[in-house]
Amino acid sequence: MPGIVPAVVEVSGGNLVLVIVVGLIALGALVMAAMFRSEVLAAGEGTPNMKTIAQAVQEGADAYLQRQFRTLAIFAAVAFFALLALPADDATVRIFRSVFFLVGAGFSAAVGYFGMSLAVRANLRVAAAANTEGREPAMRIGLRTGATVGMLTVGLGLLGASLVVILFQDKAPKVLEGFGFGAALLAMFMRVGGGIFTKAADVGADLVGKVEQNIPEDDPRNAATIADNVGDNVGDCAGMAADLFESYAVTLVAALILGSQAFGDKGLVYPLLIPAIGALTAVAGVYFTTPKAGENGLVTINRAFYLSAGIAAIASVALSFVYLPTSFNDFTGLSSSALDAISTSTPDGNPALIASIAVVIGIVLAAAILALTGYYTGTEYRPVKDVGQTSLTGPATVILSGLSVGLESAVYTAIVLGGAVFGAFLLGTGSLSISLFAVALAGCGLLTTVGSIVAMDTFGPVSDNAQGVAEMSGDVSGEGAQILTELDAVGNTTKAITKGIAIATAVLAATALFGSYATSVLEELGPDDSGELLHAFVFDPSVLVGILLGSAVVFLFSGLAINAVGRAAGAVVMEVRRQFREIPGIMEGTGRPEYGKVVDIVTRDSLRELITPGVLAVFAPIAVGFGLGFTALAGFLAGAIGTGTLMAVFLANAGGAWDNAKKLVEDGLHGGKGSDAHAATVIGDTVGDPFKDTAGPAINPLIKVMNLVSLLIASAVVSMSVGEDQNDALRIVISLVAVAIIAAVVVMSKRRAVAIEA
Amino acid sequence: MPGIVPAVVEVSGGNLVLVIVVGLIALGALVMAAMFRSEVLAAGEGTPNMKTIAQAVQEGADAYLQRQFRTLAIFAAVAFFALLALPADDATVRIFRSVFFLVGAGFSAAVGYFGMSLAVRANLRVAAAANTEGREPAMRIGLRTGATVGMLTVGLGLLGASLVVILFQDKAPKVLEGFGFGAALLAMFMRVGGGIFTKAADVGADLVGKVEQNIPEDDPRNAATIADNVGDNVGDCAGMAADLFESYAVTLVAALILGSQAFGDKGLVYPLLIPAIGALTAVAGVYFTTPKAGENGLVTINRAFYLSAGIAAIASVALSFVYLPTSFNDFTGLSSSALDAISTSTPDGNPALIASIAVVIGIVLAAAILALTGYYTGTEYRPVKDVGQTSLTGPATVILSGLSVGLESAVYTAIVLGGAVFGAFLLGTGSLSISLFAVALAGCGLLTTVGSIVAMDTFGPVSDNAQGVAEMSGDVSGEGAQILTELDAVGNTTKAITKGIAIATAVLAATALFGSYATSVLEELGPDDSGELLHAFVFDPSVLVGILLGSAVVFLFSGLAINAVGRAAGAVVMEVRRQFREIPGIMEGTGRPEYGKVVDIVTRDSLRELITPGVLAVFAPIAVGFGLGFTALAGFLAGAIGTGTLMAVFLANAGGAWDNAKKLVEDGLHGGKGSDAHAATVIGDTVGDPFKDTAGPAINPLIKVMNLVSLLIASAVVSMSVGEDQNDALRIVISLVAVAIIAAVVVMSKRRAVAIEA
Repeated sequence: MPGIVPAVVEVSGGNLVLVIVVGLIALGALVMAAMFRSEVLAAGEGTPNMKTIAQAVQEGADAYLQRQFRTLAIFAAVAFFALLALPADDATVRIFRSVFFLVGAGFSAAVGYFGMSLAVRANLRVAAAANTEGREPAMRIGLRTGATVGMLTVGLGLLGASLVVILFQDKAPKVLEGFGFGAALLAMFMRVGGGIFTKAADVGADLVGKVEQNIPEDDPRNAATIADNVGDNVGDCAGMAADLFESYAVTLVAALILGSQAFGDKGLVYPLLIPAIGALTAVAGVYFTTPKAGENGLVTINRAFYLSAGIAAIASVALSFVYLPTSFNDFTGLSSSALDAISTSTPDGNPALIASIAVVIGIVLAAAILALTGYYTGTEYRPVKDVGQTSLTGPATVILSGLSVGLESAVYTAIVLGGAVFGAFLLGTGSLSISLFAVALAGCGLLTTVGSIVAMDTFGPVSDNAQGVAEMSGDVSGEGAQILTELDAVGNTTKAITKGIAIATAVLAATALFGSYATSVLEELGPDDSGELLHAFVFDPSVLVGILLGSAVVFLFSGLAINAVGRAAGAVVMEVRRQFREIPGIMEGTGRPEYGKVVDIVTRDSLRELITPGVLAVFAPIAVGFGLGFTALAGFLAGAIGTGTLMAVFLANAGGAWDNAKKLVEDGLHGGKGSDAHAATVIGDTVGDPFKDTAGPAINPLIKVMNLVSLLIASAVVSMSVGEDQNDALRIVISLVAVAIIAAVVVMSKRRAVAIEA
Repeated sequence: MPGIVPAVVEVSGGNLVLVIVVGLIALGALVMAAMFRSEVLAAGEGTPNMKTIAQAVQEGADAYLQRQFRTLAIFAAVAFFALLALPADDATVRIFRSVFFLVGAGFSAAVGYFGMSLAVRANLRVAAAANTEGREPAMRIGLRTGATVGMLTVGLGLLGASLVVILFQDKAPKVLEGFGFGAALLAMFMRVGGGIFTKAADVGADLVGKVEQNIPEDDPRNAATIADNVGDNVGDCAGMAADLFESYAVTLVAALILGSQAFGDKGLVYPLLIPAIGALTAVAGVYFTTPKAGENGLVTINRAFYLSAGIAAIASVALSFVYLPTSFNDFTGLSSSALDAISTSTPDGNPALIASIAVVIGIVLAAAILALTGYYTGTEYRPVKDVGQTSLTGPATVILSGLSVGLESAVYTAIVLGGAVFGAFLLGTGSLSISLFAVALAGCGLLTTVGSIVAMDTFGPVSDNAQGVAEMSGDVSGEGAQILTELDAVGNTTKAITKGIAIATAVLAATALFGSYATSVLEELGPDDSGELLHAFVFDPSVLVGILLGSAVVFLFSGLAINAVGRAAGAVVMEVRRQFREIPGIMEGTGRPEYGKVVDIVTRDSLRELITPGVLAVFAPIAVGFGLGFTALAGFLAGAIGTGTLMAVFLANAGGAWDNAKKLVEDGLHGGKGSDAHAATVIGDTVGDPFKDTAGPAINPLIKVMNLVSLLIASAVVSMSVGEDQNDALRIVISLVAVAIIAAVVVMSKRRAVAIEA
């Protein structure tokens, strides 16, 4: 296999200094995060009413996350020991892969936790500023909150990766597999759990409040309002931040695994330098995002994004030509056979040029996806207007047109993503290892924008909650209320468009991981076996069956997530109805609903519901790999990436389009609030809620967790399937146990559904 | 490549006699069809009112199909000459592949046309019999109509395939590629066009009639009712019959292509014998389906299905052991290298046993899919009951629960299908050609049930229309009306469950075709190239990009089909509203709506709308294959099969579940007709209409058309990409032209949408 030769590289001298500089930049990012955080906390907290409400949200959110972490600690412990038991190259890798699994999981949790705990403190400050100081100060607090979480994400991701490279040198890639897996696993659970929480509370609150009692959103008479606000934070804020942190970590992991094989020692350093540039430009971006009077908030945010992305692109190209040689012969640490392979296939290959183009592809991709998502979910473009228009013929046509928009947007996003992957791949001009590394580098290019993306995304729940706190407190009216409505709308859009980027990072990371899995299998097979075995692979129906199963897992996962929201929302509906019935005077405002009860119910249900999809993600690749073989597993991963990409974009954009179609009508189109058209779009929005905030975004960590699990079991799967250690009985038993575990949790979740109905 | 060696086989002596016998059985099936047809036509035609209405439906349906055939004739002519221009092994293949393309297309059209023209004559006879003679005679007419179409499908399919084998001997597989392509292309257009017609009329009629004017379904005051009834026939009847004929033909084509490589001359005969058994057992099944007094119609139909499937299984096994040897050494017509390859990998291989198991896998699969689809869409099981239950919390929860049911059912169906493919594949015990043939034989096993399946399916629109005719005529009440309601319900279920089988045949046929594509590429590459080239294939990101694009085409196609229904339905709504406004006395029954106008509008729109998805299906594989290479094209096909399977089942079953959830409520649950719960389920059903009757079923021919196009261009793609004739410029130009054509039709369809709105 040309170029797939284990590399022995060492990071020393100037390279070591550079990695240490990256580590320092990471620490700097953390310091910036702390600075931004104190700036936010220094702002005024508003009226006593606001404080009471915000307090309730804070307590609910804290309680949820603490219970979630307790549940996840069990999973993490099991995974820690399972990793320890997995065969590895040597004891160092074995032990530290497990240790850094915990570090990755811990960082992921920390990003989620700190991000959220600041967001729930920032919301009332934004509300207070809007009330007393005006638009720019309010927006500034929201933006600084986002910046804090962004810097935290970038800082911890870079810190973890550079630390591992410094400590473990050529063993770093293997240790990083653990780091990435920990980050991805925890992020997936936070995404799923938070996603179920936020939408169960939201849908449940709407079904009783808006539909049955005809009271507005965020009305304090609705017992589910606090839970709804808590949900915005645990889902959109904690879940999304953990997810993006995980994308960051996993993309770095994949790039470092593939880097040493393609670029020798420099391949272990270069993938850290690019995101380090991103960290610096993200800081610059924060200062570009100074709200100007009279300018639409979205314009401010977009300008900052494009400016910092442009600077990152220029700086990356410059750095590439400074740091990387222009000929492959100048690399050290590449084995002679690897060098041979590379120079045969790319005689005139210019590493600096290849890397520059790959990184720029990633940055351009980010901008393209941002534009595409904006087009399909923005109120000012055709698609959302069309969906709004169909509200005149009732809810069914709203649903159908939204689904169409989602399907169509998924296709164009997939084409853009496929183009980026294929473009990066062509850069290898025949050398597989360089091609794969180029794909990973496109991912690193995308990472340079993550700081800004997290900031934009966090702005969403903060401004949403600010409006909620203001409305519930009853203390904000007039201009202040108007400002908050505007900021909420901006936040809605940023939330929608950043989802596209999250998916793009997931696809590039997963593709690079898929390449790492491939490399791992080929290494394990050795040069003799691979030829014959891979022959059969191409048209082996087992690959097709793998693809079918990989696609099926995405469907099942989506179905489970949507179902979980439905079930949990049902419990909320029952509870809120009960409170309206049993607590006297709620509707008149003389009785106070028991908000905490609803928070407790949603907390309990979401934690219970996250288990099934989580187990599915971890055990499905084990079942397929050991049961059907490593070629079927390759098909499985490819099918999951392909269908997962489309499904994630479809769900996110259909949901976004419905949400904004509702906004259009609420802004007065087609009869405005209270019309039949409005009712139709509310139905569309409710359908879209679990699409865009639960199932869709959870697919990102799903495909990465499955790829990482496959990477971790790759050598065991191969050695049990072929060669001396072949052990068909054992591998089939392992597969059957995995199938049994999946079946057991699926059956349990069905039982639960039956029990709830009864 | 073990076993992939072009075989030179001849069908002579006893084998030739057998194929002639198969041809005679095919003719016998056609004679049976004629007999059943005259039995149907001999029945009484009912009251003058009924005749007038049925006449209008007949005229509308005829007019639509004639215009459709005129449009498609242009496509067929272009494809005919394009096929002539494609390189082929020799002049005979080149000419007759094109000729049999026309034969395949003609047969496909004939099955659709004759089936439909009988159905529109049978509907009023069923209504008349229900009115005057009672339940059993009415059901019998419906069943005989189905049997006619079933025998026609089986007869023409077998006739075409056996004729080609008799005439072209070892060149038969290549000629059959044309036959299959013709059948598939025409069926796809009929499926898409008919699907858009039926649902545009249905949704349009409901939106104005049920929702705005509050008049019942099939009310003669609604100008779209005749169009709605026409739609049932051109969609469910003509479209479905053509689709199943095409599945039949394409499965045979794939089996015959793969058969000679695995089983020598007997491999060109055996795949014809199994479906011939199916033709005989289908006739037996017709006589098993004698309705008994007091027995639920569905029980009668199911009993006949399982009985005839059981007999087919036993007969197939017996025939396999009589006809096939028990050792591979007894085959003639296999080249020595193929024999070597087979005997190395399966030294104790028993062809008779392998073939028996493969066929039985197919038959068991049919039964399993039938049961699974029945479970997910039947009113007596949990899933539909659950969807019905969610109607209490409004339309949004109905939509979400239906989507969940659809997603879940798709997963389990995919697992069963994947299991069947993998099981058949394992039968090859290491020989790829035998594995692929086993998959095709499982498809042949499935074919033995097609006669019954077509009959069950056709029963659906006939009983649906019988009720429509009766209701519009106003001449049927009391017991007669009740009988028709019962038969309609039975027909709804048979229509839903047969969709599952249609998808299963599509997947097996497509998988076998995928194998044929593989074989074709490997042959073209030759033994020297394949090793090195395929190396890169496995983990080549271009394969992943191919998978992504293959999945994307399925999403785009579904989105286009759903969108087309929405657009065409919008035009119907405008026209019906206009008639209510401008023609005086419609609501009072003194004015008569202009039914023909609506039929014209839907006809025009569906013919216009079918072009975009049709062009996409034909040109997408050309764009991918020539542009990104034959490995990317393999990924593309695999991705399309994987995602297509899941999407088709998802759309069909979600639609079926919503439809029957509405029935549950209409039967009195959760408040019954007129309640809020009913309104919620009507919305679900409307969303489900284009899912289950347009987009979902059209995916079956889509994946086969794409596989057949790939098979036809395989050698051109390979020779332009590698070797002496490599011509990158030409292949990229071809790809760009294909992309431009797709882009042009997509843009045109967008323009049309804008024009309609304006």
